[in-house]
Amino acid sequence: MSSHTFATKKTAIIGTGLLGGSLGLAIRAACPDAEVVGVNRSEAGRRAAKRAGCVTATTSSIETAVEGADLVVLATPVCAFESIFTVLAGTLAPGALVTDVGSTKRDVVRLGESILGRGGPFLGSHPMAGRERKGAAFADADLFLGAPCLLTPTKHTPPNLLRRAKALWKAVGMRPMEFAADEHDRVVARISHLPHLLSSLLMALPGDADLPASSSGFRDMTRLAGGDPEMWRDIMLTNRDAILHTIDCFAGKMDKLRAVIEAGDPATIERFLTKEQQRRRTLPDG
Amino acid sequence: MSSHTFATKKTAIIGTGLLGGSLGLAIRAACPDAEVVGVNRSEAGRRAAKRAGCVTATTSSIETAVEGADLVVLATPVCAFESIFTVLAGTLAPGALVTDVGSTKRDVVRLGESILGRGGPFLGSHPMAGRERKGAAFADADLFLGAPCLLTPTKHTPPNLLRRAKALWKAVGMRPMEFAADEHDRVVARISHLPHLLSSLLMALPGDADLPASSSGFRDMTRLAGGDPEMWRDIMLTNRDAILHTIDCFAGKMDKLRAVIEAGDPATIERFLTKEQQRRRTLPDG
Repeated sequence: MSSHTFATKKTAIIGTGLLGGSLGLAIRAACPDAEVVGVNRSEAGRRAAKRAGCVTATTSSIETAVEGADLVVLATPVCAFESIFTVLAGTLAPGALVTDVGSTKRDVVRLGESILGRGGPFLGSHPMAGRERKGAAFADADLFLGAPCLLTPTKHTPPNLLRRAKALWKAVGMRPMEFAADEHDRVVARISHLPHLLSSLLMALPGDADLPASSSGFRDMTRLAGGDPEMWRDIMLTNRDAILHTIDCFAGKMDKLRAVIEAGDPATIERFLTKEQQRRRTLPDG
Repeated sequence: MSSHTFATKKTAIIGTGLLGGSLGLAIRAACPDAEVVGVNRSEAGRRAAKRAGCVTATTSSIETAVEGADLVVLATPVCAFESIFTVLAGTLAPGALVTDVGSTKRDVVRLGESILGRGGPFLGSHPMAGRERKGAAFADADLFLGAPCLLTPTKHTPPNLLRRAKALWKAVGMRPMEFAADEHDRVVARISHLPHLLSSLLMALPGDADLPASSSGFRDMTRLAGGDPEMWRDIMLTNRDAILHTIDCFAGKMDKLRAVIEAGDPATIERFLTKEQQRRRTLPDG
């Protein structure tokens, strides 16, 4: 396989929610002949993935799904990864790539390497894609288009494994970027996890009577608050340290701005707003 | 004039930026025969408003614009209102409605009633509409569609004036709502001004190297940070007390959530996220 093309004969996707289901659709579009087996414990979940065309087959058994698979993707909540890695340890085909779509990486990479082996088949991935809807019924092959996918190789990761993972995420339209797992968790605390918390906290601020007066600004700022509570609970638990540190940084910046507003200092207020307005313009487009 | 239809023979719009320009377009669409005169101190500003079709004529003179006007709308930064009210006091036609598009209301209503008279021609309006672009070149008659417009009558406001103002904002597609000026400022601190500050503060959090890893969530959460620094500086200055109070409320909520995350308490984290997810669903659609 070249470093630019991605191929799979059999892919197992463990967890067929929005992300797992969307990835199934995207892999099927990229590799139309591939067998894509979705694992879901619930019959309703399996039916939904099948009905949406996310997978070619479903099963409740991880062992059955990964038998002969050259690609295995964990797409369940992160807190389930440890037991899944343990099942994989006994059943993986030689040469398989194991990756995931989890939003935190330090604990995940540690578990993946300790259970499946250093220099083994696991490489952490974090596709920066999502939506405020749950389940395969909302799956969309275009979910990943143009978004970054953060990969967290370690010094033990075989170069060929990293190349294959990059080819996978490029094949579904993403921009792969590499981070050390610890650094990944600190970065996403700033660009993803704290934004989510701010969104939920902001939703908690106005009274019910205030809400009809709100407009597009408030709606945009609270979109993330509509996300899956179970998934975000796991993120808060598994990226606790980086999130606490980021909350403290943010609180410090808010304190400083509060003092400037209290002092009623027009020039300093405008300088702050102008600086962040300019910075906003450097963001990659959607 | 009935309470449901809006009519104007001559409207003066003082300040022909994005909001003033958009209002000109919307009024011209609703009242095709109306004369709509735009006031701008800069020649470039007047040319832009004329070129975008926002107005039928332009001038640099408030006196010229308001002569014979039955509707006068202040659409400059709020800090310029005092001197504009003073000019209007000597030149308004009898029976004219004077309103504005400013984002704060306590100071504005106090000035409007003290300079133009209690029971006089001024009624505060706050159309909850905007965009991260400046100037008449980006004006859009549809900017107001479906959004709330917060009106702040006082006990001195003539009922007929309020009816006319409601008819105006309905004519451009808005949902009028009434608030006391003080209450307006407290409500918008929660649903608009704090969200803007959070957006700017969030933009200040990641390092430059982190930004390419960000995705749609971060982009949405920082959209407001792209807004006009001069306008938002004025908002911070004129709604200082309510904004400081709201920052303190928000900081208190963030502190509590921080403690829950530090304790690593899954049930409490999930309960918080679920409550705000449910609440988000009650928001009016965009």
